Amino acid sequence: MQIAMIQDKIVPMQELMPVYLDRGTFFGDGVYEVVRSYNGKIFALEEHLQRFTDSMAAIGITGVDMEKVHSRVLKAFEAAGISDAKIYFHITRGSEPRNHIFKDDLEPNFFLTVTEIEDKASDESGGIAVSTHPDWRWRRCDIKSLNLLANVLARQDAVKKGCAEAILVNESGLITEGAGSAFFAVFGRKLQTAPLTTNILPSITRKYVVEAGRNIGLEIVEESLTPQQAGSADELFIAVTTKDVVPVVRFDDKTITDGKPGELTKLILAEFQSFTG
Amino acid sequence: MQIAMIQDKIVPMQELMPVYLDRGTFFGDGVYEVVRSYNGKIFALEEHLQRFTDSMAAIGITGVDMEKVHSRVLKAFEAAGISDAKIYFHITRGSEPRNHIFKDDLEPNFFLTVTEIEDKASDESGGIAVSTHPDWRWRRCDIKSLNLLANVLARQDAVKKGCAEAILVNESGLITEGAGSAFFAVFGRKLQTAPLTTNILPSITRKYVVEAGRNIGLEIVEESLTPQQAGSADELFIAVTTKDVVPVVRFDDKTITDGKPGELTKLILAEFQSFTG
Repeated sequence: MQIAMIQDKIVPMQELMPVYLDRGTFFGDGVYEVVRSYNGKIFALEEHLQRFTDSMAAIGITGVDMEKVHSRVLKAFEAAGISDAKIYFHITRGSEPRNHIFKDDLEPNFFLTVTEIEDKASDESGGIAVSTHPDWRWRRCDIKSLNLLANVLARQDAVKKGCAEAILVNESGLITEGAGSAFFAVFGRKLQTAPLTTNILPSITRKYVVEAGRNIGLEIVEESLTPQQAGSADELFIAVTTKDVVPVVRFDDKTITDGKPGELTKLILAEFQSFTG
Repeated sequence: MQIAMIQDKIVPMQELMPVYLDRGTFFGDGVYEVVRSYNGKIFALEEHLQRFTDSMAAIGITGVDMEKVHSRVLKAFEAAGISDAKIYFHITRGSEPRNHIFKDDLEPNFFLTVTEIEDKASDESGGIAVSTHPDWRWRRCDIKSLNLLANVLARQDAVKKGCAEAILVNESGLITEGAGSAFFAVFGRKLQTAPLTTNILPSITRKYVVEAGRNIGLEIVEESLTPQQAGSADELFIAVTTKDVVPVVRFDDKTITDGKPGELTKLILAEFQSFTG
């Protein structure tokens, strides 16, 4: 008799809840998005849904009605009644007995949570420390997939070192991005970040940060940085949906300028907030 | 109010079953093993449990009682009563609201299935076709983790091409291993496979195949192959826990020798079977 076991409990396979056979768990076979609301309004939802569609297409999850996903997000957001909310959602290819090869007619599994955005006031005012970690991620980081163990291990390593984020460095010695954020450096009036041609996520926040930088008159340079270059920048910051723009004041063992959030970083954040407000 | 949504159904967060908050699903934050039995006896269980322990240590899952895991495997195998069984089990770091950073005191989630081994007689007698695919996996394939989307996509690509397995080729143009198997080539009396120093899984079946090759007098060469070299081999085969040794008769568009399973491959399989019988 085919059986499953959950902790110590034996369950006949035919009585097992499908969630235990989720390809999301067996293989990380799914994609996700995180959006947030500001004061009751979800920011850049259409762009996140478009990226979600692109991620699904890239791994061949088909048959998902994006209108339905859109209305689920809105329905859940409304039900939660959280004004500054973090909305996480994923779709996995579906549930079936474990096999790399998948059936074409699986019903995808949709899952979503709505929670409060964490307070980031202290990060914004004081800035954060970051540490570098080898970029162990897979070669398709343009896809926002559930294969995130490399990100988890890098972030945990940073936390152990008293840092808030890990900055990933690839085998060529170049910074790709943060474990869960885009990474930016300011040199004089230049705002530099890795180009999207490398193995990095097409971050939506990155796009708005670049726009904010242009609006305040900075020259945008899309070129990869080495850790050494980053450590000698005038200003550094990370950008992420749930935290907007967060100043970086320490990079590994290097204090950035005077160890306080940079002036241009503050201007970029203010400009960014004009988009989200 | 914090809420979750499963397909169209809204659930208050505090009523959500922990399985929906499994870090295995959010991040692939877990490790797994597959063992099989031959005629009522599990093969190489101690070695698989050791590798499982190593995988957990590598990603920092602590506090798992391996004696308990061992007894769970035996208990489930006995309960299923399947003589030639495939036993899959994984442990994830545990369930909690999604956050890259994990709590140290999470209770890991154990999950296991026992199913019948699929019949492989036709593969063994006729051999299989394989196709190459870029190795998109992460840089820590020595860890048997749940981050397997690259493997899934490669295998699916192979199936679309009428092949049974994908052979992964890294950025240096060298074959690492199959999407779910070790890969071997025979040149004259030499048995060649990639060294474990590259980014590949320390396959237990590989170890026994190497031993089988030595026993029948072959010289073992642990050096990476290019696809071109593989295509010109005298014999090719893959090795995997659930299928033992499977002859490869076509490699991309190249027929291997006469398109029939090789004689040395058959001898290796016979020798391998002397270990498992």
